[in-house]
Amino acid sequence: MKGKFYGIGVGPGDPELITLKAISAIEKADVLICPDAGNGKKSIALEIGEAYVKDSTERVPMTFPMVYDEHVLNKSWEDNAVQIETFINQGKNVAFITLGDPGVYSTFMYIVPFLVEKGIEIETIPGVTSFSAVASTMNLPICLWEETFTVVPLQKDVTSARIALENTDNVIIMKPSHANKELAELLIEKGLDDKFVMISKVSTDRQNIVRDINVLKDEKVPYMSTIIVKRKGI
Amino acid sequence: MKGKFYGIGVGPGDPELITLKAISAIEKADVLICPDAGNGKKSIALEIGEAYVKDSTERVPMTFPMVYDEHVLNKSWEDNAVQIETFINQGKNVAFITLGDPGVYSTFMYIVPFLVEKGIEIETIPGVTSFSAVASTMNLPICLWEETFTVVPLQKDVTSARIALENTDNVIIMKPSHANKELAELLIEKGLDDKFVMISKVSTDRQNIVRDINVLKDEKVPYMSTIIVKRKGI
Repeated sequence: MKGKFYGIGVGPGDPELITLKAISAIEKADVLICPDAGNGKKSIALEIGEAYVKDSTERVPMTFPMVYDEHVLNKSWEDNAVQIETFINQGKNVAFITLGDPGVYSTFMYIVPFLVEKGIEIETIPGVTSFSAVASTMNLPICLWEETFTVVPLQKDVTSARIALENTDNVIIMKPSHANKELAELLIEKGLDDKFVMISKVSTDRQNIVRDINVLKDEKVPYMSTIIVKRKGI
Repeated sequence: MKGKFYGIGVGPGDPELITLKAISAIEKADVLICPDAGNGKKSIALEIGEAYVKDSTERVPMTFPMVYDEHVLNKSWEDNAVQIETFINQGKNVAFITLGDPGVYSTFMYIVPFLVEKGIEIETIPGVTSFSAVASTMNLPICLWEETFTVVPLQKDVTSARIALENTDNVIIMKPSHANKELAELLIEKGLDDKFVMISKVSTDRQNIVRDINVLKDEKVPYMSTIIVKRKGI
């Protein structure tokens, strides 16, 4: 019998914010994929998940390059998919652990089409997102009544963030470190400089809450940061 | 010593999609608020959470009317907050359980400002949203790369949905039963009628997946349904 591929969201960082379903899937894993971005650091997601891995589970490092070259990326996903298929054909369950929710900008989702093509059975297990954790930490709603919200990953400019701020009531900015100075200037321009909160490493013991626009503008912002902007105020 | 008020997300419906943190907060509860919308039915959220409640925990029914009269609503929240304060002053921990994530259209968030005003200590525990569960069920990403997504609660018309479909790559429609026929017509108009999935009662044993635009247009859609529209296709 063939094995199954599990994409598992372990939540935003607090080890207690993992679901029972995620734990049970990790416990079933014969193979644990250990994604490597090339910096040699163990990810927070793996740190959370490893508590539930069986002693006999094989750890398999797999490189997912952090580049924007489509050819390089496709080649690496295809190679990784071939390797995963070998384990699946040996009847092994393979687990891929991801921080937050697999549906929201996770590395796992890029490899899914390659696995689907190979007829591999996949189960995705949703997790708590970083933005839900930010709102909860502040005891704030993301949205109420008829309000909308938009999630925007910040790139080198703030074009998408501007469109979102002009069209929705609440805006969540992911990866603000990519252009935090420009974002701060946009918030000032829109009169929203006191209507945001940024939390870095949310729900972990290194969590940091920022409400001061000058910090957003002038300081180095950690990669793992999430901002909520509420037009009605915070 | 005063008690604490917990707002607890128990996830989208699958009892396994509850977090360890939610379980631990429910176990600490001396009082469990049982919200009543007036229809006499026990909520799915309570069904999930009750598995972890202590025998000694007091169950307190509390009415949250489903009306849109601000005066009626404010009065009911104020009354409920007074009742909660009594328990808190007796040193009791009070739990309010909510389906999905408390940040996303939950009844819990409407009462929070009344409790903050009374100086009551609040802890909100985030949960897995219905839309993360829909995406996971389909092994689909909500967003990849530089894509954005917007969450829109459908009202009697589709104005907000139209704005979202014109401005973001992926749109999540909550409460589609409010105007499902109009929404189907909008999707056809935009050429998106084969680029959506609707799941009712996601992650429960009564889950139903709809990909056929005619079903969205012509059939009765259950209240607990969530749609994902992906402009790049599904």
